[in-house]
Amino acid sequence: MADHTVRAFTEQLEALASSVAQMGGLAEAQLADAIDAIARRDTARAEAVVAGDRKVDELQQQIEEQALRVLALRQPMAVDLRETLAAIKIAGELERIGDLAKNIAKRAIVLNREQPIRLAQSLARMGSQSLAQLKAVLDAYSDRDPDSAELVWKQDGEIDEMYNSLFRELLTYMMEDPRTIGLCTHFLFIAKNVERAGDHCTNIAEVVYHMVTGGHLALERPKGDTTASARIEKKD
Amino acid sequence: MADHTVRAFTEQLEALASSVAQMGGLAEAQLADAIDAIARRDTARAEAVVAGDRKVDELQQQIEEQALRVLALRQPMAVDLRETLAAIKIAGELERIGDLAKNIAKRAIVLNREQPIRLAQSLARMGSQSLAQLKAVLDAYSDRDPDSAELVWKQDGEIDEMYNSLFRELLTYMMEDPRTIGLCTHFLFIAKNVERAGDHCTNIAEVVYHMVTGGHLALERPKGDTTASARIEKKD
Repeated sequence: MADHTVRAFTEQLEALASSVAQMGGLAEAQLADAIDAIARRDTARAEAVVAGDRKVDELQQQIEEQALRVLALRQPMAVDLRETLAAIKIAGELERIGDLAKNIAKRAIVLNREQPIRLAQSLARMGSQSLAQLKAVLDAYSDRDPDSAELVWKQDGEIDEMYNSLFRELLTYMMEDPRTIGLCTHFLFIAKNVERAGDHCTNIAEVVYHMVTGGHLALERPKGDTTASARIEKKD
Repeated sequence: MADHTVRAFTEQLEALASSVAQMGGLAEAQLADAIDAIARRDTARAEAVVAGDRKVDELQQQIEEQALRVLALRQPMAVDLRETLAAIKIAGELERIGDLAKNIAKRAIVLNREQPIRLAQSLARMGSQSLAQLKAVLDAYSDRDPDSAELVWKQDGEIDEMYNSLFRELLTYMMEDPRTIGLCTHFLFIAKNVERAGDHCTNIAEVVYHMVTGGHLALERPKGDTTASARIEKKD
């Protein structure tokens, strides 16, 4: 951070970054708990995630107001301006991750009423990878480290591959036993939500990279969900 | 817009708003074409949507840079500051809508290789509603009309209801004929993407409302996708 003549300004920027870090920690906990609620079939935990989303939303609004005050009162330039805007954008991404965690938790509550299915394992692995990405990108933000941010950005493909494989697995599962279609549909959306959480980490990585360097990682995000173009396999 | 002593500033803000309107028009066209590509089984159009997404992404980046220049050079206050930030946020939402259109188009290409199914009708209705919402919220932005924005925000429930009903329909379809599972899964994600496009319109409505009034529509977005909590129906 540049040396400011106005000490209060530095403090405001630090307070903003600290709010973002706090919100990041909360979003991470929400996502971890939502995934855990499936793996452990823990409905109480899932319900806590659903209830906890409001706190994530409140933090976002607080960060936006904080950032607007900095913009209005301090009129930051260059890297300080990018930091202020990065706070707004990252808070927006974290809010989405919070929404995804809430949606996963809602579906966990339904799944926990049903017989367990073996796919929960693949999902847990995908969840861990997505959480690792979130943790890494939040660290990159705190450390102002563009290289770590770029690494997160590049690694999104791994989650996408896991998703593609789980998607295939689920389709096979449904075709083999149509009674599981309702259940598998929930799993499908949970998996998609975990994959989307990974995309939001990629977005955050782009913001961090731009915040520190002023440059752009790329116009085109690395998107590896190939299921949209998947040929339809029929079992006749 | 307030009377500015610096005419150039007013012009910059107007140019920014005009870029957002242009991007809005493009995102609307992309979504309309993607939905149309399914209804008319028009693969060439779907391919054009996939290729056209890059233009949407480029416009977003251009708007961000334009807004950053306004912030850095003009240091806007109050409503002007909110307008500048609104441009960044709306461009972000429009970029997501562009991504969704691209994803729908990719799935359309796959669907067009298969036998048509009757669900395309319900989907087309849902698509029209979503497009109407997008058009209305872009108008609310151009007119700086918080009441119209609030109306869009309130009407999101209609798309959600359509989605919930289509979701049920698709599940029944799959259970009745497991050979359609692959096909129906594509439809499921297309429907979800249309529903998400509606959510982004809701987000834009919140931004427009805040831009004009300085107030917030609500902390909690009106979310009507209840399928996350849907009980699983089994056919034994």
